[in-house]
Amino acid sequence: MTLNEITQYLSLELSTSQTIEITGINTLKDATTGEISFLSDSKYEKDLENTQATAVILPSSKAHLLPENTIALLSDETYLMVAKLSKIFAKPIQSSTIAPIIGEKSIVYPTAHIENGARLGSGCIIMSGVYIGTDVVLGDNVTLNPNVSVYRDCIIGNNVIVHAGSVVGSDGFGYAHTKMGEHIKLYQNGNVIIEEDVEIGANTTIDCAVFGSTLIKRGSKIDNLIQIGHNCVVGEHCILVSQSGLAGSTTLGRNVVMGGQSATAGHLSIAPFTTLAARSGVTKSITKGGVYSGFPLMEHKLWLKLQAKLAKIL
Amino acid sequence: MTLNEITQYLSLELSTSQTIEITGINTLKDATTGEISFLSDSKYEKDLENTQATAVILPSSKAHLLPENTIALLSDETYLMVAKLSKIFAKPIQSSTIAPIIGEKSIVYPTAHIENGARLGSGCIIMSGVYIGTDVVLGDNVTLNPNVSVYRDCIIGNNVIVHAGSVVGSDGFGYAHTKMGEHIKLYQNGNVIIEEDVEIGANTTIDCAVFGSTLIKRGSKIDNLIQIGHNCVVGEHCILVSQSGLAGSTTLGRNVVMGGQSATAGHLSIAPFTTLAARSGVTKSITKGGVYSGFPLMEHKLWLKLQAKLAKIL
Amino acid sequence: MTLNEITQYLSLELSTSQTIEITGINTLKDATTGEISFLSDSKYEKDLENTQATAVILPSSKAHLLPENTIALLSDETYLMVAKLSKIFAKPIQSSTIAPIIGEKSIVYPTAHIENGARLGSGCIIMSGVYIGTDVVLGDNVTLNPNVSVYRDCIIGNNVIVHAGSVVGSDGFGYAHTKMGEHIKLYQNGNVIIEEDVEIGANTTIDCAVFGSTLIKRGSKIDNLIQIGHNCVVGEHCILVSQSGLAGSTTLGRNVVMGGQSATAGHLSIAPFTTLAARSGVTKSITKGGVYSGFPLMEHKLWLKLQAKLAKIL
Repeated sequence: MTLNEITQYLSLELSTSQTIEITGINTLKDATTGEISFLSDSKYEKDLENTQATAVILPSSKAHLLPENTIALLSDETYLMVAKLSKIFAKPIQSSTIAPIIGEKSIVYPTAHIENGARLGSGCIIMSGVYIGTDVVLGDNVTLNPNVSVYRDCIIGNNVIVHAGSVVGSDGFGYAHTKMGEHIKLYQNGNVIIEEDVEIGANTTIDCAVFGSTLIKRGSKIDNLIQIGHNCVVGEHCILVSQSGLAGSTTLGRNVVMGGQSATAGHLSIAPFTTLAARSGVTKSITKGGVYSGFPLMEHKLWLKLQAKLAKIL
Repeated sequence: MTLNEITQYLSLELSTSQTIEITGINTLKDATTGEISFLSDSKYEKDLENTQATAVILPSSKAHLLPENTIALLSDETYLMVAKLSKIFAKPIQSSTIAPIIGEKSIVYPTAHIENGARLGSGCIIMSGVYIGTDVVLGDNVTLNPNVSVYRDCIIGNNVIVHAGSVVGSDGFGYAHTKMGEHIKLYQNGNVIIEEDVEIGANTTIDCAVFGSTLIKRGSKIDNLIQIGHNCVVGEHCILVSQSGLAGSTTLGRNVVMGGQSATAGHLSIAPFTTLAARSGVTKSITKGGVYSGFPLMEHKLWLKLQAKLAKIL
Repeated sequence: MTLNEITQYLSLELSTSQTIEITGINTLKDATTGEISFLSDSKYEKDLENTQATAVILPSSKAHLLPENTIALLSDETYLMVAKLSKIFAKPIQSSTIAPIIGEKSIVYPTAHIENGARLGSGCIIMSGVYIGTDVVLGDNVTLNPNVSVYRDCIIGNNVIVHAGSVVGSDGFGYAHTKMGEHIKLYQNGNVIIEEDVEIGANTTIDCAVFGSTLIKRGSKIDNLIQIGHNCVVGEHCILVSQSGLAGSTTLGRNVVMGGQSATAGHLSIAPFTTLAARSGVTKSITKGGVYSGFPLMEHKLWLKLQAKLAKIL
C-alpha cells in the first residue's frame, strides 16, 4: 500500500508527492525503512530521533523531533490513526504455502490442525483438537494437550507442556477510542515466545504482543485459568498460581511467585524473588524482592498488622 | 404433553378434565396460549393479570390474581415445580433436519462441526474445532477462532470476533433446591444474542438465558476469562477487562468499563458511563455514572481516602 | 526398574545388593509391596510404621521409624527425589490396546477422540472436539459438551453434565524446588472421580490427584471458570459459583456454598452447610457451618459491622 493511499484512508495530509510503498507498521524503535510508525505516548519521544521508519504519525508539536528525512503525518488522534491502520496490515490467519514440517517421533492426533509454515521438532505430542497456527515453531518434546490453541507466529521451546484448553497468542486487548465512545481494534501484530521447560496449566490465556513478543522465560510454571496480557515478560522460574492475572506490558523478574487470584496492573516491573500473597493486587512497580500482600499492596508483615488492628476496632 | 400428564408428573391437582396440550414453559410476560407459566418471585405478580399462559403454577394465595380463563396449578414450591418441568421441555441438542447454510466466501475448517439448522453469513471464518449448535445464526464476517463453542439458538452479528476456547450459550447456573438439600436443574431455554462489532477474548464464558436472551450489545469488547451470567445485558461499547464477572440478570448501560477481576452481583443495573476499578465488587445498582472502587463499592475518591486513613492506623 | 537403578539415578545409597523390581511410587499409606514411598512432611510420620512400601525415601533422622524389612533411602531433599522419580513412573498418555467400549444409545460426534481402554455407559452424548483419555470410565447418560477434555483414568458417574471447554484431570500444580531456584515437576499419578448428578460449567478446570483421587461427590453443581486443585474433595450437593477456586487438598463438607470469586487455601477442611460469601478468602479450616465473608475470613455479621465502622472513619 502506498503512503498516499494510507493518508487518504486516514484523512491525513501528505507533504510529498513521491510514490512510497509502505510494508507495515511498527514501533519507533523497531520500525525499518518502508514501515510506518507513530508517537502516541510521550514516554517514547526519545525514540523519535533514531527511528528508521519511513513515516511517523504524531502530533504537530512533536514533528520537529523527527530525523530530517522522515515523513511526518500530523494528527492529534495518533492512537486512533494507528488502530485504523493496523487493520490494513493485520496478518492473515493463513499466509504460508509451505506444508508443515513435523520432526521425527512426533505424534499428531488426526483431529489436530496444523497450518502451513509451522515447524515442529522431534518427540512432540500434539493431541486431539489442538490448533497450531501459521509459522508457529515448536522445539523438541513439546506436549500440547487436547484443545490447546496456538496462534500464528508463536514460538515454543523444548520440553514445554501446555495443558488442555489453554490459548497461546490470542489477540491482546487493545483499542483506540473515538469521540463517540466507540472502540477501534488495534490489530495485534506480535507473537508469544515460550522458552524451554515451561509448563502451562489448563484453560490459561497468554495474549500475543501488539508489536514484538510476549515472553515467558525458561522454567516458569503457570497454573490454570491465568491471564497474561500482551507484551508481558515472565522471568525465569516464576510460579503463577491459579486464577492470577498480569495486565499488559508488565515484567516479572526471575523467581517471582504470584499467589492464587493475585494480579498486577499494566506497565509495571516486579523485582526478582518477589512473592505476592494470594489475592494481592499490585498497582506500582516493586523494586525490592520480598513478601507482599493486600490491595493496595503492602509488605506482608504490615498487612498482617493491619488486619490485627482492624479486628480490634470491632 | 397434556396438562393432565404434567400435573400427574408434578403431583399437582388439576381443576379441569379437558385435554389440553402444553407446548412449552415460559415467563408470565412472554408465555403464549398453549404454554405453562409460573410465579416464583413476587416481583412478577404484576404480570399475572395480563398473562397469555394457558396454566400458571403459583401459590394458592395468588390464584385470585389470574385472568378468569387461566388455569391455576397450586404449589408452595413453585420454583422446584418449574425446575422439574423444565427438563421435559428442554431443547434437544439436535432438532433440525435442515442442512446448515454457509454464506459465500465463508471458510469452514474441516474439524469444525456445524449442526443442522445453522445459518452463516458471508465472509465468515470458522476455524478448527469450532462447534456451532442447532439453529445458530451468524452474520457476515464473523470470525470464530479455534475451539470456540456456540450452543444452539445463539445469534451472532456482523464482524464479531470470538477468540479461541470461548463458550457462547452454555447453560446458566440455575437450580431449585429440595428440602433434602438437593439441587434440581432448571433447564435453560433461552439463547445469547451478540450484536455487531463485538469482540470476545479467549476462554470467556457467556451463559444463555433461562428464558429469553442474554444480550451483548454492539461494539462491546470483552477480554479473556470473563464470566457473563444468564440473562445479563451488556450495553453498547462496554469494556470488560480480563477475569471480571457478571452474575445473572445484571444490566450494564452503554460505555461501562469493568476493570480486571471486578464483579457484580446479580439482578443489578449499572448506569451508563460507569467505570469500575480493578477488583471492585458491586452489590447494589448504580444509578449515576462515575468511577467506583472497592468491595463494598464506593466512589473511587472515597476509596483512596479510606486507604490513606488505613495506612495511618498502622 | 530395579531399586539399584533408581538409587543410581537419584544418587542415593542403597544398603542391599539384592535385585528388587520397583513398579511404582505411592504414599506411605497406599503403597504396596514393590512400590517406593517417601516422607516429605512430618504430618505423615505416623504412617511409617505400617507402610507396605518396599523402600522409603526419608531423612536419616526418621529411618528408625520404619518397619524392620523396609529399605530406607536416606535423603535430606525427599520431595525433590520424589519429583525426579515421578517422571520415571509417569503414566503414558496412551497405554491400552483395548478398543473403547461405547454403551448402547450413546452418541459420539465424529471429531471426538476416545482413547483405548475407555468405557462409556449407555445414553451418553460425546460432542464434537471432546477428548476422553485412556481408561476413562463414564456412567450412563453422561453429556460432555463440545471441546471438553477428560484426562486418563478419570471416572465420571451417571447423569453428569460437563459444559463446553472444561477440563477434568489436568495435572495438579506440584513441583519440588532445587537450591538453584528451579522447579522439578511432580508427575501426577492420580485421577478425578466425579459422582452422579454433578453438573460442571464451561471452561472450569479440575486437576487430578498427585496420588489417589480428586473427588467431586454426588449432586454438586460447579459453575464456569472454576479451579479445583489436586486432591480436593467437594462434598455432596455443594454449590460453587463462577470464578471461585479451591487450592490443593482442601475438603468441602456437604452443601457448602462458595460465592463468586471466593477461594480457599490448600489443605483446609470446610464444615458442612458453610456458606462463603462472594469473594471471601479462606485461610484456616472452618469447623462450624455458618455464613462467612471477607479476606481474612470472618463471620458475615462481623464483616458487615466492620464495613460499617470503616465507612465511619472517612
